[in-house]
Amino acid sequence: SLTSVSHPAKVFAEEKKNTQYYQFDDDGNLLRPMNYREWIFAGTGTTPKSVYPDVLFPDFQNVYIDPYSYQLWKDTGSFPDGTIVVKEITTLGKTNSPVGRGFWQGDYISLSAEVKSQSRFPDTHGNWNFFSWTNRAEEKLNDKSPALGAACSNCHVANAPEGGVFYNHFAVLRD
Amino acid sequence: SLTSVSHPAKVFAEEKKNTQYYQFDDDGNLLRPMNYREWIFAGTGTTPKSVYPDVLFPDFQNVYIDPYSYQLWKDTGSFPDGTIVVKEITTLGKTNSPVGRGFWQGDYISLSAEVKSQSRFPDTHGNWNFFSWTNRAEEKLNDKSPALGAACSNCHVANAPEGGVFYNHFAVLRD
Repeated sequence: SLTSVSHPAKVFAEEKKNTQYYQFDDDGNLLRPMNYREWIFAGTGTTPKSVYPDVLFPDFQNVYIDPYSYQLWKDTGSFPDGTIVVKEITTLGKTNSPVGRGFWQGDYISLSAEVKSQSRFPDTHGNWNFFSWTNRAEEKLNDKSPALGAACSNCHVANAPEGGVFYNHFAVLRD
Repeated sequence: SLTSVSHPAKVFAEEKKNTQYYQFDDDGNLLRPMNYREWIFAGTGTTPKSVYPDVLFPDFQNVYIDPYSYQLWKDTGSFPDGTIVVKEITTLGKTNSPVGRGFWQGDYISLSAEVKSQSRFPDTHGNWNFFSWTNRAEEKLNDKSPALGAACSNCHVANAPEGGVFYNHFAVLRD
């Protein structure tokens, strides 16, 4: 039937549940997430620094959420314990195309993540903590990030709807 | 091991192969694809009409590819027969955020797709054909589009690298 077409999410739900989307080492560092571009794309912030020099981050901020937590977000409207959200920052690439002028994504700059874990972060707002990596994934796969805490959470807690994820900026999560 | 972490693509490859991502009716109309936001995000064109009034499409063009064809693109560098690429156009939403000024995605406007099929489109360039829907998915799930042919292919064939997909604009496909 039509309703079963193009609907991989339900089919894969059980497999997703058993997939480990991130890994901490014994010292509490988060290893760089891999293959996040194959997770669920939540949206992008386009902040071209050449147009708006005061932006906190250049030029695109692509946000992805692990597929299993996305499924639960859709079903329940809240992020489950164990959610990981990743933000990839890229340069501004092309500024012209066959459809006219605009902003297209260039190359990878850096990666950040936030993880919600009651057992690991019992005392942080919403049990979120924050991580960041600057070198390219392919160059150093074992790259680690300590929990960055207030360096990120000061802004997230003050400004994000749930004290963690700026989902109000992303249509996929709003809908 | 680390390399098996966060790597759902390989795990799901067989299931993806057997998932039907699109469906034609008996008259050759393509039914509106569903759940494409859970496919692989290829990239977005940010073409804010308020800044650049001459753009062909407003304001964001989010491009997704079905997960199975993406896997084969990664492995082989070409799009297999049966590939479907979807483009969702959205309005410009917020223009300010805690990280500064920029462009964030607003609401759904319309959906387009291109399908590569030698059996269905033996005479088109690269066996691609093109489809479009303007009403919102949730309102009319059985919405159909005829093949639009030259209305879309004139620009795609003239300008896109493979005569079909503008993958040069999208980092996920370039990489």
